[in-house]
Amino acid sequence: MFFGSDNWAGVSPQVAEALSACTDGFASAYGSDDLTTQARDALGTFFDRDVDVFFTATGSAANMLSLSAVARPGGVVFAHRDAHILVDEAAGPESLVGMKLHALIGCQGRINAKELTEALATYPREHVHRGRGIAVSMTQGTELGTTYCVMDVAAIGAIARRNNLVLHMDGARFSNALVAQNVTPAAITHESGVDLLSLGFTKNGAWASEMVVSFREDLRDDLTYRQKAMGQVFSKNRFAAAQALAMLKDDHWKVLASHANGMAKKLSDGITNLDGCRLAAPTEINEVFAIIPQAMAQQLEDSGAIFADWPEDSAEADIAPGEGEMMIRLVASFATTDDHVDQFLDAAQRAEAA
Amino acid sequence: MFFGSDNWAGVSPQVAEALSACTDGFASAYGSDDLTTQARDALGTFFDRDVDVFFTATGSAANMLSLSAVARPGGVVFAHRDAHILVDEAAGPESLVGMKLHALIGCQGRINAKELTEALATYPREHVHRGRGIAVSMTQGTELGTTYCVMDVAAIGAIARRNNLVLHMDGARFSNALVAQNVTPAAITHESGVDLLSLGFTKNGAWASEMVVSFREDLRDDLTYRQKAMGQVFSKNRFAAAQALAMLKDDHWKVLASHANGMAKKLSDGITNLDGCRLAAPTEINEVFAIIPQAMAQQLEDSGAIFADWPEDSAEADIAPGEGEMMIRLVASFATTDDHVDQFLDAAQRAEAA
Amino acid sequence: MFFGSDNWAGVSPQVAEALSACTDGFASAYGSDDLTTQARDALGTFFDRDVDVFFTATGSAANMLSLSAVARPGGVVFAHRDAHILVDEAAGPESLVGMKLHALIGCQGRINAKELTEALATYPREHVHRGRGIAVSMTQGTELGTTYCVMDVAAIGAIARRNNLVLHMDGARFSNALVAQNVTPAAITHESGVDLLSLGFTKNGAWASEMVVSFREDLRDDLTYRQKAMGQVFSKNRFAAAQALAMLKDDHWKVLASHANGMAKKLSDGITNLDGCRLAAPTEINEVFAIIPQAMAQQLEDSGAIFADWPEDSAEADIAPGEGEMMIRLVASFATTDDHVDQFLDAAQRAEAA
Amino acid sequence: MFFGSDNWAGVSPQVAEALSACTDGFASAYGSDDLTTQARDALGTFFDRDVDVFFTATGSAANMLSLSAVARPGGVVFAHRDAHILVDEAAGPESLVGMKLHALIGCQGRINAKELTEALATYPREHVHRGRGIAVSMTQGTELGTTYCVMDVAAIGAIARRNNLVLHMDGARFSNALVAQNVTPAAITHESGVDLLSLGFTKNGAWASEMVVSFREDLRDDLTYRQKAMGQVFSKNRFAAAQALAMLKDDHWKVLASHANGMAKKLSDGITNLDGCRLAAPTEINEVFAIIPQAMAQQLEDSGAIFADWPEDSAEADIAPGEGEMMIRLVASFATTDDHVDQFLDAAQRAEAA
Repeated sequence: MFFGSDNWAGVSPQVAEALSACTDGFASAYGSDDLTTQARDALGTFFDRDVDVFFTATGSAANMLSLSAVARPGGVVFAHRDAHILVDEAAGPESLVGMKLHALIGCQGRINAKELTEALATYPREHVHRGRGIAVSMTQGTELGTTYCVMDVAAIGAIARRNNLVLHMDGARFSNALVAQNVTPAAITHESGVDLLSLGFTKNGAWASEMVVSFREDLRDDLTYRQKAMGQVFSKNRFAAAQALAMLKDDHWKVLASHANGMAKKLSDGITNLDGCRLAAPTEINEVFAIIPQAMAQQLEDSGAIFADWPEDSAEADIAPGEGEMMIRLVASFATTDDHVDQFLDAAQRAEAA
Repeated sequence: MFFGSDNWAGVSPQVAEALSACTDGFASAYGSDDLTTQARDALGTFFDRDVDVFFTATGSAANMLSLSAVARPGGVVFAHRDAHILVDEAAGPESLVGMKLHALIGCQGRINAKELTEALATYPREHVHRGRGIAVSMTQGTELGTTYCVMDVAAIGAIARRNNLVLHMDGARFSNALVAQNVTPAAITHESGVDLLSLGFTKNGAWASEMVVSFREDLRDDLTYRQKAMGQVFSKNRFAAAQALAMLKDDHWKVLASHANGMAKKLSDGITNLDGCRLAAPTEINEVFAIIPQAMAQQLEDSGAIFADWPEDSAEADIAPGEGEMMIRLVASFATTDDHVDQFLDAAQRAEAA
Repeated sequence: MFFGSDNWAGVSPQVAEALSACTDGFASAYGSDDLTTQARDALGTFFDRDVDVFFTATGSAANMLSLSAVARPGGVVFAHRDAHILVDEAAGPESLVGMKLHALIGCQGRINAKELTEALATYPREHVHRGRGIAVSMTQGTELGTTYCVMDVAAIGAIARRNNLVLHMDGARFSNALVAQNVTPAAITHESGVDLLSLGFTKNGAWASEMVVSFREDLRDDLTYRQKAMGQVFSKNRFAAAQALAMLKDDHWKVLASHANGMAKKLSDGITNLDGCRLAAPTEINEVFAIIPQAMAQQLEDSGAIFADWPEDSAEADIAPGEGEMMIRLVASFATTDDHVDQFLDAAQRAEAA
Repeated sequence: MFFGSDNWAGVSPQVAEALSACTDGFASAYGSDDLTTQARDALGTFFDRDVDVFFTATGSAANMLSLSAVARPGGVVFAHRDAHILVDEAAGPESLVGMKLHALIGCQGRINAKELTEALATYPREHVHRGRGIAVSMTQGTELGTTYCVMDVAAIGAIARRNNLVLHMDGARFSNALVAQNVTPAAITHESGVDLLSLGFTKNGAWASEMVVSFREDLRDDLTYRQKAMGQVFSKNRFAAAQALAMLKDDHWKVLASHANGMAKKLSDGITNLDGCRLAAPTEINEVFAIIPQAMAQQLEDSGAIFADWPEDSAEADIAPGEGEMMIRLVASFATTDDHVDQFLDAAQRAEAA
């Protein structure tokens, strides 16, 4: 019953095999090898246009690389207050990017046009003391397990364009969001105004397959040098490229993400059928945010279920746990099985009955 | 005839197998898993004392993590002018570490006590404008294919201790240096005054196995948070740990490094037997720095040999190439075969004869 | 009717005279001159203990110097959400200090023990992703014209000590706060746990007299080098020292601040007597935050009054302007006269009557 | 006999008077006042074109502001190895600018086209590891008391333009250089390719009158926000503006600099007439670099002369002091009198005779 996070899983057999397949032979270093070229091309096909690709060790690194490449003096980055860059990167963005992070409130984990517009208005051009907006960062799927539809992204994209903001998307669970929205990668990124995407395949079944995908040729040099200066250029980059290629081949990413989303949905449905349990947000990807009785949570833990207590302060007011309740996060992955889910729901039912 | 760099090779079968072996199952993320604990323990055994270990994506990252964790305002880091942090990390150290890098001249790629002492004297305590020494960084084996013996390290270590400098060692080719010096890892690091080691197994036969090994408990928190803030904490860290464990098991690192060093020695011996060729520095590890006729270099390239033209400006005055000569670098790896070396030497002999 | 800010005033005759008095002669540079020594000694007397003093160009610089000297990887600084470092320094603190700024809500412009304790709890030691608390910054007088009493400071100081946080005080209007609280400088700073004080005399009647006063000898080197590395060491520092000396001589600071506070009080009293006007916070120093009818604000501006429209978003919920109202800020200075205040109140009364 | 530095002097009467003249009255803050506008206009006249002006506290700050506003990832700044940014700003440029400083050797304190071109060639575009050139910084007058003529500047300017480098000039002693070269400010700056000038009047007779003068409108926003984010925007900026205006009025800067240069020349001539003394570089501005017998230096110090022992390591090989000799630096200022110089030369003659 491992629902702690999707990064508790290992790697899919296809990814492992792809990695094994490139054990031998010589290839030039630092991303000038054939596999890396193939990966870039495959990502070009995936996004239906030429792209620049910068492999990184982690999703945090992809986020910081994206933002630091576009950083300007006095810069402000707008993001949801629960965004990874704001709460889970140990002040790295402040330190490496050197820009202010402006936390937006937005329901169900999404930033929205109204909040963003109002926030921008607090940085009037004549008032240099406040700083100036440089970028906006959206998380797709969000930190509350929801997604942005194409119209949502395009609405933010339009504001970004009007205000000369770079639009960054943190896509640590981008595959899951694509499956949920059933749209093309192009439609929900560059066609909707996204400039830079932190694309992550690690949570979806790779060892370490994270990258910045850039839809902005003019940022190529800045990203290239910043990637190097951040210590993010793998010397044997074919191991990173091989993982990305395995993910893209035959839509393997989709198979894995669909499975993970499906397992989360099953979990979610089961939980909503339990007395005293409700969802904190709709289960759109592979994460379930549920509000359950504290007693039940305790019994679930006692029976070996692994999940996260979710910090109350990151919840919207209208979904705050009540007296005797708590919010938990359950994450399914490609490696989650029907059995895992059934065991969890059985344990929950026993707890309910107790 | 791939002598471009040791990072052109793939991975050793043992490393590949170790990675495959942990494909399945669930493990907690961000380095709290069992394999990571085992790797830390194995490194403790390797160094004959408790150590802290911080896995990173690259050697550059390990260097920058080490130095940024100990950075202080006005700080100066002393290193050889050919050091990786000075010439191959795209101003990352300046940007992420924020300290001045003071280039030391030192023959055969080594910094020495005299140069360091003189450099320190140019930062008198009362003259705040210049800055103050904070750290010294040695590269073991050096960027000229030589190594520091225990006495060399201890001499620098003593100066560092007297001047309250952190002693960092860049060990991108630490295995090769250990084999060359035939000493224990303990003797040439913490027993000689090294505080922080960038330990790299990538060049020696892993995909991406780089880490900071800290012999200073008091730096644990700073390294821990800085690693996170630099985007250098792999979520599925067991894949990094598995590689390190494979390297340490049954002294696999030694087998690989001994082979690479041996291949370089064979190459080196062959080159010195050629008319008009000489070494720029003794071949102590898996790198050969040779001065050869430009015509020979051209013919070698034409016959498919891959090696690096080495920048003249990084050479010591007494080993500068003469008229019609050039310096080249040849690097052997675990994957280099006798055949590769023989082919190269044959081609060189043909060039000589021509 | 200049109530735009206290930094719209010039300098007091005593300060101007002190500056003129040191026009001639030679003195060693960068703060090694006699006047600077005298200023340090005079500040030692002022604070009733030895202090280190680092003159800076601006209060922003003093804040950033303080925080950057104590910055650590993954660090978090707690401050009121209206604090100058958060809203008025153009992302400088993020960029130069490299730490996360955690905004605390607290009524009447003050941070409080409860909020701080709760915020600290969201940075549990085992959860490296969030970062770690390093410092807390209080503004005395606050950005809402209120002050902290000794007990307030001591309460925060106790939490800081227990949690190993550096306690910084932004004292851009420290003189005004001292007058308001009628306590000794010692009592409300180092005796209550303050480690570093940004002490500003500029707003109180100097040209540019800002400094970091440190009560922590162990931070001397870090502050010294950071001051230099930030470009904040005046070469002819006697001009800065002379201003500080003039301010301290015969309690000149107190005379000026008492006058400014008194003018603000008169203004404040007058405003509360007007129909439809109320204070957003008690007028404790030389700033008045008032909620007045929008129509009145317009008429005041038309009659030449200069004041600031205060951003609604920085106001506490219970003092938010209602329909047809707005919040304004009026600042008195040493140069404000009874006539200025009377003219303003007359204009306001005329507006009320209209 | 104060020849320690030109910043040991106070301020010229005209500057002091200008400051006193603006003691009274109210003016809007942060550089939006009339005097600041007048200063910008006066500087526009001075440079014979529209300019942007950013006042700073110190010359170091002006240098760091200039370079940090144009900083890019992986960036390299080329400067003479004796440049202030390299040796006298306590690693501030590394820390605040985040770019690598590449030290150029160049005789008589000047960088030259050949050295710069060769250095640029070591940063080939395809080799991302090294970084990329972003800016070049010249010091006018140099740190060895010499100057660049218009052709010198234009030669560097042409290289800068071809290589897309920003050309920065550190003009801490710009007035002295102007007088020495007898050219217009325009000719030796923007007309020769200079983009950003750190213009300093402090050493020439102001308290603190330093500024970045920008000839590049496209950098206005970056400079504006960076100035603020560095804590370099004086709130009562009229005091800075007043000093600059006093300097520009009736060519006051020229009167002061001509006097200082003349005093240095007299000193220089006197020294070269002494047995065993010679110049390390021609005395073109207000600084004399002389190589004198150590015994003489000692006797001069004993008789109360104040000057600086100049570090040997910053001297060119052909001007290194010989056995029993040392290099000293003597700086004249607006406040240096004929008597000072005569006393010094008398004392030197007595030492010679001894």
